Amino acid sequence: MKDVQREKDTRNIPLKNVGIRNLKWPVKLMEKGGGYQQTVATIAMSVDLPHDIRGTHMSRFVEAINEMKSINPKDLDKMLTELRTRLDASVSHCTIEFDYFITKPAPVTGIESPYNVKCCFEAEKGENGEFKFLMEIRVPVSTLCPCSKEISDFGAHNQRAIVHIKVDIKKLVWIEDIVKIAEDSASSPIYSLLKRADEKWVTEQAYLKPRFVEDVVREAAIVLEENSNIRWYSVMVDSIESIHNHDAFAYTEKGCTL
Amino acid sequence: MKDVQREKDTRNIPLKNVGIRNLKWPVKLMEKGGGYQQTVATIAMSVDLPHDIRGTHMSRFVEAINEMKSINPKDLDKMLTELRTRLDASVSHCTIEFDYFITKPAPVTGIESPYNVKCCFEAEKGENGEFKFLMEIRVPVSTLCPCSKEISDFGAHNQRAIVHIKVDIKKLVWIEDIVKIAEDSASSPIYSLLKRADEKWVTEQAYLKPRFVEDVVREAAIVLEENSNIRWYSVMVDSIESIHNHDAFAYTEKGCTL
Amino acid sequence: MKDVQREKDTRNIPLKNVGIRNLKWPVKLMEKGGGYQQTVATIAMSVDLPHDIRGTHMSRFVEAINEMKSINPKDLDKMLTELRTRLDASVSHCTIEFDYFITKPAPVTGIESPYNVKCCFEAEKGENGEFKFLMEIRVPVSTLCPCSKEISDFGAHNQRAIVHIKVDIKKLVWIEDIVKIAEDSASSPIYSLLKRADEKWVTEQAYLKPRFVEDVVREAAIVLEENSNIRWYSVMVDSIESIHNHDAFAYTEKGCTL
Amino acid sequence: MKDVQREKDTRNIPLKNVGIRNLKWPVKLMEKGGGYQQTVATIAMSVDLPHDIRGTHMSRFVEAINEMKSINPKDLDKMLTELRTRLDASVSHCTIEFDYFITKPAPVTGIESPYNVKCCFEAEKGENGEFKFLMEIRVPVSTLCPCSKEISDFGAHNQRAIVHIKVDIKKLVWIEDIVKIAEDSASSPIYSLLKRADEKWVTEQAYLKPRFVEDVVREAAIVLEENSNIRWYSVMVDSIESIHNHDAFAYTEKGCTL
Repeated sequence: MKDVQREKDTRNIPLKNVGIRNLKWPVKLMEKGGGYQQTVATIAMSVDLPHDIRGTHMSRFVEAINEMKSINPKDLDKMLTELRTRLDASVSHCTIEFDYFITKPAPVTGIESPYNVKCCFEAEKGENGEFKFLMEIRVPVSTLCPCSKEISDFGAHNQRAIVHIKVDIKKLVWIEDIVKIAEDSASSPIYSLLKRADEKWVTEQAYLKPRFVEDVVREAAIVLEENSNIRWYSVMVDSIESIHNHDAFAYTEKGCTL
Repeated sequence: MKDVQREKDTRNIPLKNVGIRNLKWPVKLMEKGGGYQQTVATIAMSVDLPHDIRGTHMSRFVEAINEMKSINPKDLDKMLTELRTRLDASVSHCTIEFDYFITKPAPVTGIESPYNVKCCFEAEKGENGEFKFLMEIRVPVSTLCPCSKEISDFGAHNQRAIVHIKVDIKKLVWIEDIVKIAEDSASSPIYSLLKRADEKWVTEQAYLKPRFVEDVVREAAIVLEENSNIRWYSVMVDSIESIHNHDAFAYTEKGCTL
Repeated sequence: MKDVQREKDTRNIPLKNVGIRNLKWPVKLMEKGGGYQQTVATIAMSVDLPHDIRGTHMSRFVEAINEMKSINPKDLDKMLTELRTRLDASVSHCTIEFDYFITKPAPVTGIESPYNVKCCFEAEKGENGEFKFLMEIRVPVSTLCPCSKEISDFGAHNQRAIVHIKVDIKKLVWIEDIVKIAEDSASSPIYSLLKRADEKWVTEQAYLKPRFVEDVVREAAIVLEENSNIRWYSVMVDSIESIHNHDAFAYTEKGCTL
Repeated sequence: MKDVQREKDTRNIPLKNVGIRNLKWPVKLMEKGGGYQQTVATIAMSVDLPHDIRGTHMSRFVEAINEMKSINPKDLDKMLTELRTRLDASVSHCTIEFDYFITKPAPVTGIESPYNVKCCFEAEKGENGEFKFLMEIRVPVSTLCPCSKEISDFGAHNQRAIVHIKVDIKKLVWIEDIVKIAEDSASSPIYSLLKRADEKWVTEQAYLKPRFVEDVVREAAIVLEENSNIRWYSVMVDSIESIHNHDAFAYTEKGCTL
């Protein structure tokens, strides 16, 4: 059968990315405590395409992911390196987005339950053989408004917020470690399972530790800045405001100067 | 050209609904204060199909909606009546979902700003000529947890929640009236634009009026029950819990007995 | 600490459902071929609430799901039965929605790859002790338009479509069996990984087997009707039309008469 | 009342963006044919925040958008310029995402109907007073696979695809002009309302003009490259593959060299 994709192309337009998106796939990841966690990912994979070739062979992306045993920087590097060869490309990329579950004890009763954080791994194998790996973790937390607390005679509005931390790492940093940084920066962590004594603790803890989205970003940035395993980071906090029908957010990244 | 849809079907399976979905369309609605509001709807339309006909003519749904000048019960009845004839069907339906904007003053400063509620109209023209019209309004509000307030030495967790009120009406009931019922049932209304004096009011108001999702449903049900223009109603409240990564909800409907 | 939820309620409004929603949770399911599949679910759980009690104890839902080892009708019955007792309710419900992966060989080359179907289990333990279990499977397929094929000199528009089959079962029916029924009813199954010989097969197969959404519903209904393990079923097909920016759909259910 | 946001901050972390997101708002836009179109937008707005100030005043974003009469580059420049002053910031941004409706005649019968394209405007007022304005239009089209057509004895798989064109403009370019470029690059435009003669035309047109996602990107890039009002562009095409449960995509941008 004719290979239409390999036809010569004379339009002289190189393509930065050609690939697949929204591929749902079962994946396995190492946990900090040892052992593996099985979860479900949404995957995108692509390569570049020179100006004189008509198309890429899309099925080879699925073949490549089909051969991966677990998702980690080392195996992604290997897979993307092979992908460049299989598809005759100079750069290969993938992004892998998934729910990851962390089990933690309730703050007073200590009852354990899992809760989910969203993760997104972005990996690229470049022309010069360089491998880039970025990891974004989105952690649900609680924020309590310092202004509302200050100006009100009682109470203070609070809400669920999501802390997005993205890191470029020099050495292995666990998802669990990033989650801890996010939770410590907010007014309070949140939990799947809280008994009354726990609910009292979370309520009072948040009231004692009011945080604007600006504060959460700064508190996280200070800790990320000091971690020698992290080459670059960004922090975004999105707060599902309880007094508005829109969100408040703040963002910064390493090296931002103002 | 051959009319494939009109072929005889011998499989003997009648279809309850055949139609189109996810049609985005510009629509116009009357406002309570007079005048019209232009917004964007997502529309589904369908008819039934007898066991012996192969298919319906999908383009006629779009023709029918294309002729509507504004969205209201009377014109929907007329459109659905014609649709039954055009498509040789005994029952015709449509659902129309859209953002509707309401302008209200901030509670202390009185500064006006619009905010959106989600609406869903469901209309059906039945075999016997009966016209049914259901209207669902989803209103963002704030809820403050009575348990958290009671057991904590200070503060109380609160969050954005969505009140879904669905009504089957005998006489015209305005979207604005349903929104008022939803807001009055919650710990506090929410706003697009609040200055500090307003934020203080909303914070204190919510603290003084703690509401479980169960409470909000009951408060709304009491008012809906008393409205003689409402034949049937349901109320669902979904609360984006600020201490959990999941929601709490409660639901009831007219006639529920336990 | 005071139990605010257990307060007497004098508003006299019973609630049909009180519970939690959008809880992400790791779950395990039996596969037809033996063994278990680990995936990620979105869970809702609720009970009813009598008119004279203020609220339910939300944390007990999470405790109940936390104790489940795997998701299947028998264990759901047991969990919902206990939930009624724990929460002093007469009816308990849950819905569990998840991606389930099925590995199948490409039609010509036989290369195996997994692909995802969406599943939703709905279970209810009723007042009289009756247990209801409904299973909905949403299967991506390809549909090719019979009208377009008939009236055009060459080609025919086709597209991805989703077949939603919901069943009330008397005896165990596997997810894999429902998927087979959905795929056989469409113009062609779809795959994660196709080589050129497979793509030729899928293209020609779809062209030889044109199907309106109405046809897919009827073909599936015929097979479901004959299955003695199925007490009731519904079929909905939603087609992401390639010539429109909206979808076409058809729906029927057991017992529909027109 | 105390202005908590204006407190001195000693953490020494400047923030690149502080603002609001997911604000739904009614907006008005000029149409190419004259007159205005009313639609619904989702808006984000932000400013930067120096290292020594604790927070920004979020309500001023809503005040600023509340004063805009219509959405266009000139008025956005003015609004963002004022926002920098109101919030004492050096950079201000906004993104405005909305459905825009275009009415076009069916290809044979000429029957007119509206259909929606998604638009996203991104505007920034920079430190040096520079105003940047980017416009992204997402246009639904149909793509028919050249490989499937070549290797199959009859038929060819096709599907709905979305062409995303983003432009940085020197002079006014209408949404309608970008839509035309996207549609001309694909196998066929798509429509809300097609009668049988039109469906025959669209089917045959697509079969005569097969396009990979790579082809669509290149065809659009050629035209965008030649337009002297466009300073920079990117093109992304996402195809909802009818033979897979995932999408195929391709991307390029002005200046890409390979």
